[in-house]
Amino acid sequence: MKTASDAAAWLLERNGYLILTHRNPDGDTVGCAAALCLGLRALGKTAWLYPNPQITDRYLTFCSELIAPEGFAPAYTVAVDVPDVRMFALGYEGTPDLAIDHHASNPGYAAQTLLTPERAACGETIFAVLKAMGVRIDPEMAGALYAAVSTDCGCFQYRNTTADTLRAAAELMDLGADTAFLNKLLFRTSTRAKLALEGMVYSTMRQYLDGRLNVVSVSLDMLRKAQAKEDDLEDLAALAGKLEGVEASLTLREMPDGKVKVSMRSNGNPNATEVCRLFGGGGHPMASGCTMDCSLEEAERRLVTAVTAVWK
Amino acid sequence: MKTASDAAAWLLERNGYLILTHRNPDGDTVGCAAALCLGLRALGKTAWLYPNPQITDRYLTFCSELIAPEGFAPAYTVAVDVPDVRMFALGYEGTPDLAIDHHASNPGYAAQTLLTPERAACGETIFAVLKAMGVRIDPEMAGALYAAVSTDCGCFQYRNTTADTLRAAAELMDLGADTAFLNKLLFRTSTRAKLALEGMVYSTMRQYLDGRLNVVSVSLDMLRKAQAKEDDLEDLAALAGKLEGVEASLTLREMPDGKVKVSMRSNGNPNATEVCRLFGGGGHPMASGCTMDCSLEEAERRLVTAVTAVWK
Repeated sequence: MKTASDAAAWLLERNGYLILTHRNPDGDTVGCAAALCLGLRALGKTAWLYPNPQITDRYLTFCSELIAPEGFAPAYTVAVDVPDVRMFALGYEGTPDLAIDHHASNPGYAAQTLLTPERAACGETIFAVLKAMGVRIDPEMAGALYAAVSTDCGCFQYRNTTADTLRAAAELMDLGADTAFLNKLLFRTSTRAKLALEGMVYSTMRQYLDGRLNVVSVSLDMLRKAQAKEDDLEDLAALAGKLEGVEASLTLREMPDGKVKVSMRSNGNPNATEVCRLFGGGGHPMASGCTMDCSLEEAERRLVTAVTAVWK
Repeated sequence: MKTASDAAAWLLERNGYLILTHRNPDGDTVGCAAALCLGLRALGKTAWLYPNPQITDRYLTFCSELIAPEGFAPAYTVAVDVPDVRMFALGYEGTPDLAIDHHASNPGYAAQTLLTPERAACGETIFAVLKAMGVRIDPEMAGALYAAVSTDCGCFQYRNTTADTLRAAAELMDLGADTAFLNKLLFRTSTRAKLALEGMVYSTMRQYLDGRLNVVSVSLDMLRKAQAKEDDLEDLAALAGKLEGVEASLTLREMPDGKVKVSMRSNGNPNATEVCRLFGGGGHPMASGCTMDCSLEEAERRLVTAVTAVWK
């Protein structure tokens, strides 16, 4: 499929939809699913969300009443914002009939795919599909779409934000999205564990190379003290980059198996991929990762040496 | 003056401008001043910024080369984003010929005033004035305007953000504003002292009333340990509100004179003004403050009692 109109025509011709979200669901996949479900229902169709067991309270706000009851037998399955079969929501097996996605890496696992890699959020594409279907977008749909559009770009702060992302958000405000409530829920609310962990990170970070490299270690002991769950570790790798003067940062996390998971962020120089490749990892020049089989201290020592060597 | 066109006509007819920013300058006042200065110069006019001694490095990025040399004798002074004579940049005395502002409380201290209280940022108004003057807005002006537009609304997260704010930002991206650089500079960079202080706050906050009230104390000792300067305390009152489940928060700051400066934030219930009024303060239902002449512990005890009484 090439355009939002193609997807709209396909959806208008059929009925009985199950909407699939991705594993570790975020605001984009859940917001897309909720908006599409509500939009299809507004056109008189039957639509439900796949009961993704990992949807957290924060995102249940948009979709708790849209989740498929036991025994619902869909005629068609539509995946939204799902990059890969390995990222299907837990428990789902099958081949979606349609995938609407913005991940450039989407290999085309569905029978039909509408792919828009130029979009910061899949929510922008779902918005276009709803408009192409002639849906009258109400404040509830607009809110779900705003959650989708704003999540993947860090509320318009990340580099993937485009002028179109901002324009979509403006239009969704005009359509009644309760953005004050949503911004607070999505971007200005943290768990106690997450704040405690943030505090520990800020008080233990170490600078090298005249303050241009910042290193943070997160031990199992810190995670225990903060009572942190996996969910609380989202965005952890971004913290070390917030210190002024820092051009590259390393976040080292001690894993239960004793290995060290490394996330590297950089302004581009040093090239994060070059550093992480030395330890069997990879990624992008500005964000890469690797896993090391040694202590936190040893990992730090070896990584600082590697960064120093790679820096141009 | 009623419209951006009125201000544009006034500016086009004259020449020799000094642009005045406000005390404790932020991205809105500095961004407005830099964009207006560059816009007037693009039309062949002479324009400089008042040498506000408090402009920090972060904001000097947009304006270091626009600051008036010693001895510059302006024909006219234009204040941007300055709400009151008490907020004039340090050292400035006089009556501005024109004020362009968005603070509803502006009493009309200037000879002429263009006031747009419906705007989240004064930057939106300066943008309109530049367009009305026929300025070809280049990427440098667009960047300064983006800094202005995005600062006062917390990068589109605060309640004052409107659809027009988002549309202005979209247009400025189209005009070449380097938003990736600016978002990092303005919203994702902190001093070491600020991060250290944040860490202390997160590890010492206390909850009352089933977690609905969160209280943070910032002692002189904490400020010393963090080596915090006044600049590092910006947004301090917002931290306590980030904990999930919190509906109201109190930030208590020990002042050098031994008094306690209180900032209260609330979702609206309890009414923050009602609480702060009990201690001689005031503000809005969602954000108020007061000063108390007692210890941090005593202030906390009395405030928690007051909040409990006022909560409906």
